[in-house]
Amino acid sequence: MAELKVGIIGIGNMGTAHAKNLAAGQVKGAELVAVCDINQQRLDWAAENLAQQVKLYSEAAELLNYAELEAVIIATPHYDHPPLAIAAFKKGLHVLTEKPAGVYTKAVREMNKAALAAGKTFAIMYNQRTRPIYQKVKDLVSSGELGDLKRINWIIDWYRPQSYYDNGGWRATWQGEGGGVLLNQDPHQLDLWQWICGMPIRIRAFAAEGKYHQIEVEDDVTAYFEYENGATGVLVTSTGIAPETNRLEITGTKGKIIVEAEKLIFKRLRISEPEFNNTFKGGFGKPECWQIEIPTTDTGAEHLKILNNWVAAIQQGTKLIAPGEEGIKGLTISNAIHLSAWNDDWVEIPYSEDLFYQKLQTKIANSSFEKKTTESRTFSVEGTF
Amino acid sequence: MAELKVGIIGIGNMGTAHAKNLAAGQVKGAELVAVCDINQQRLDWAAENLAQQVKLYSEAAELLNYAELEAVIIATPHYDHPPLAIAAFKKGLHVLTEKPAGVYTKAVREMNKAALAAGKTFAIMYNQRTRPIYQKVKDLVSSGELGDLKRINWIIDWYRPQSYYDNGGWRATWQGEGGGVLLNQDPHQLDLWQWICGMPIRIRAFAAEGKYHQIEVEDDVTAYFEYENGATGVLVTSTGIAPETNRLEITGTKGKIIVEAEKLIFKRLRISEPEFNNTFKGGFGKPECWQIEIPTTDTGAEHLKILNNWVAAIQQGTKLIAPGEEGIKGLTISNAIHLSAWNDDWVEIPYSEDLFYQKLQTKIANSSFEKKTTESRTFSVEGTF
Repeated sequence: MAELKVGIIGIGNMGTAHAKNLAAGQVKGAELVAVCDINQQRLDWAAENLAQQVKLYSEAAELLNYAELEAVIIATPHYDHPPLAIAAFKKGLHVLTEKPAGVYTKAVREMNKAALAAGKTFAIMYNQRTRPIYQKVKDLVSSGELGDLKRINWIIDWYRPQSYYDNGGWRATWQGEGGGVLLNQDPHQLDLWQWICGMPIRIRAFAAEGKYHQIEVEDDVTAYFEYENGATGVLVTSTGIAPETNRLEITGTKGKIIVEAEKLIFKRLRISEPEFNNTFKGGFGKPECWQIEIPTTDTGAEHLKILNNWVAAIQQGTKLIAPGEEGIKGLTISNAIHLSAWNDDWVEIPYSEDLFYQKLQTKIANSSFEKKTTESRTFSVEGTF
Repeated sequence: MAELKVGIIGIGNMGTAHAKNLAAGQVKGAELVAVCDINQQRLDWAAENLAQQVKLYSEAAELLNYAELEAVIIATPHYDHPPLAIAAFKKGLHVLTEKPAGVYTKAVREMNKAALAAGKTFAIMYNQRTRPIYQKVKDLVSSGELGDLKRINWIIDWYRPQSYYDNGGWRATWQGEGGGVLLNQDPHQLDLWQWICGMPIRIRAFAAEGKYHQIEVEDDVTAYFEYENGATGVLVTSTGIAPETNRLEITGTKGKIIVEAEKLIFKRLRISEPEFNNTFKGGFGKPECWQIEIPTTDTGAEHLKILNNWVAAIQQGTKLIAPGEEGIKGLTISNAIHLSAWNDDWVEIPYSEDLFYQKLQTKIANSSFEKKTTESRTFSVEGTF
């Protein structure tokens, strides 16, 4: 089988990592043939470090016009993912986009429509789905080991100092990034949440903007979720909390999963709680519980797993780990949290995508925030991951 | 100094424990002279097990009329605490009441007024305040070791099977108990929360009634708190979750405290987060953090510590560990959580005590719940602690 000819739009941190992987032959069946960046320094890096035959472009449109190209990786700021992906599909290319797929679900729906119309493979860099620890958590939930969902609690901090925000003019602005911790740091967790536990039916959220940093977007969020079966959830996330907490707890009718410090603990009830509740007559008492540490070996190379899966899906029809339509779900949670916090009210899911879009445009229009340091906006991805 | 002559109203689980402690001479300077219960079996137990000179009463009013009496411990269902305490103060007695001081803060204000008018000592059995682990947490917060409060997260489960609720007609009814997990299981945690962290300025809460049990009151609660300085908090509590979680995390500008599994971990930042944030220029980076396990030796005998402190306050003017006015604060949080959940809206603190009282009366009036098993209501305290 001929090598899949892959281009990369945006060779900041993530794009560079993908380029290196491709150049090193780490992605089976794929070959890097072109890269694009608006930043000349990055193109200089590419000229020095990539094979001579790799074409260099400063405009995405030019790269997409390169006739040899079969597939493209998009590693630009979030807002550019949907228009670039749609342009790529129109050129008959397969697409792998960095997370989040876009800033609002309306745009991600358009991406998926364009992929379908083109009949091309569309995947998202939800590399955390390849981590053995989260695959095991999903397995425990999907297989019924945990029973029916009752409660989900996730505290997830991503500490960022002010200097992080000062670097990159697009970052942490409504116009440039469309949000803060929800859009930049949390997309993996929001995806894992819905991938493992499914979608809530309504959300009531609280978000503080510029609480710990000189930024205009949210850096501190608490969100309460309700599920159709009555299960509840709380997500607490911030870029202003140090030291960070990353603790996921999922309780089901048959026990509790705790993921913390790279350990997976399963507190397994010998008989389910509802059965115990119905049969135990002693007043004070609890179902027998076995504390189990489930071994998971993290092999790393998560991005490579997604890259290889994407290429295998294109070439051999392998099932995608993170298909494009999944980009809508985590982003639905993200958009619903924003909307709930902005409106100080419940948001039912499915939520009003038009209302969210309008509110976001208002945020952009009303922005009077001036960045201390700025740099060229498009295709700058420094520091994202 | 003469022994303080103490009576106990309600000799269920807690009252019996207090009686045994007094009878065994464990409370310095105090002597048990009378007990009261409406349940003849319990009086039979008292006749058999307590000293002959201890007077036995089946009516609280009779016990309060006993001329020798100087102080009384109230260990009845919650609703009876305020009227009994007020009656006791009017008789010139000192009072120690079981938690919660009452079901609504309006009544606890009346208790405190009566105590003040009588010039008598009024304390609450907030025995958890005597636990070394929580005293150390309070010390870390009060002394400034943790810096300014940023976030509080407490998941606290108290698993109870249906048979617990089926035993005791007053339990888990609006009329008999005035609430569920908030009123029966959580008063200690709500008190510790405000004792350690102070009072929030507003609360948005979600409570499910009879979610995991055949009861009419709440057995599953999530509450979001906001503080004047911008700090936030989430309390998650349930009697339907097994296995239980009890994990308290408090983050301040200088680090994080985690209390779980009887261990106190202090993650201490070497320089405060705001200082790091202002000075670090590297983009990605975090303040240096030292993980410290702070030793705390739990000596138990928490109830005895409160009993002895109450008697010492009466006899020697020792400062009370849990003075009566403190009963208003935790209950304010409890009432505000209920009110927010009932109204599906924010509750600002101070909240409308009249509105809460009205809503509670409506809950009582509209109750159509029939208990499968019932027993005589007044002064039955089986199973509480």
